[in-house]
Amino acid sequence: MRISELSMRSGVPVATIKYYLREKLLPEGQRSSPTQAAYTEAHVQRLGVIRALVDAGVGIAGVRKVVGVLEEPPENPYDLLGAANAAVTPEVSADIDLTAAQAILERMGGAPDACAPDQIAAVAHALAALDRAGFVVPDDVMDAYVEHLGALAEAELAATPQTSIEDAVRYVVLGTALVEPLILALRRVGEQVAASRRFGTLPD
Amino acid sequence: MRISELSMRSGVPVATIKYYLREKLLPEGQRSSPTQAAYTEAHVQRLGVIRALVDAGVGIAGVRKVVGVLEEPPENPYDLLGAANAAVTPEVSADIDLTAAQAILERMGGAPDACAPDQIAAVAHALAALDRAGFVVPDDVMDAYVEHLGALAEAELAATPQTSIEDAVRYVVLGTALVEPLILALRRVGEQVAASRRFGTLPD
Repeated sequence: MRISELSMRSGVPVATIKYYLREKLLPEGQRSSPTQAAYTEAHVQRLGVIRALVDAGVGIAGVRKVVGVLEEPPENPYDLLGAANAAVTPEVSADIDLTAAQAILERMGGAPDACAPDQIAAVAHALAALDRAGFVVPDDVMDAYVEHLGALAEAELAATPQTSIEDAVRYVVLGTALVEPLILALRRVGEQVAASRRFGTLPD
Repeated sequence: MRISELSMRSGVPVATIKYYLREKLLPEGQRSSPTQAAYTEAHVQRLGVIRALVDAGVGIAGVRKVVGVLEEPPENPYDLLGAANAAVTPEVSADIDLTAAQAILERMGGAPDACAPDQIAAVAHALAALDRAGFVVPDDVMDAYVEHLGALAEAELAATPQTSIEDAVRYVVLGTALVEPLILALRRVGEQVAASRRFGTLPD
């Protein structure tokens, strides 16, 4: 199909498609003349993925990383998850005290090398930000985070499709990046439901 | 203290402090002369909160909302949580099919009016983004999200300080906004720990 049809099918404006082509987020179409190229279903699908990531608040650099993993998936499933996680983790400096974060890793049942150093550093940075704001997570609440986020992650991993490596890659990479807004939205709904139990229903 | 000392104490550059003053995120100091103002411990604390929010990726508009809730907290604890949640929820259009999101609210044990419409809409938008990317959350995994995020939210609410309304406001508002990066970071660590159990430890 031509770029105009690709635009119609995907709902992405032609100018935006050209931008994604320049940014190498979308592979070039098959050239049929110096000014025309043909695009395929794969381009429609890829545009769906890019839009979903952008809508989810992932920046162009993050989209490029996710697309890179989709295009050249590591063979080891562990590396695959690590690459997907790295794609959505804000870059943080490693120059931070990791003690508290490493203790949490241990409480989650992980050996010291069970987790990429960048991910431990991300936890340490989140804890440091709370600390700077003078906010203390109560022990009971931290216990609940460790227990329930660990169990949730376990369920996610257990559901990784065994049908094909492509399916597994898609599930892990997109599930990591795209599910984050859902997780945060469900937590907020859960909080309001818990509050309604505690304080009665919403006032009129 | 003068602005230079406030800068030293808070670690925030003077130019940035002036920006926050212009943006009304930080209250004016007590004027001692046309060119000088005196700042207090409350300013140091407020700067800590602002920096923590900015570091957590909250935009200036979101920071303004959070600061607004801190300054004029609603009396009803339910409104307080709603205002805090609204401050960190990306603005979404309400023009979306809410059926699936409302079903999730029900599964979380909430009555139809237990949750602000904006929060239901945020769940619907997160689901729509997954749908656009052709990503299906397996039923088992959605069950795990509902169960574990509900339980986690319940633990958060149960730990709301009863010591003073100020403490409660601080806990709810900051806990909502600042804990999001921690939640996401802990989920990623949980995934890597689950993967290490499943596939062995990280390859060298």
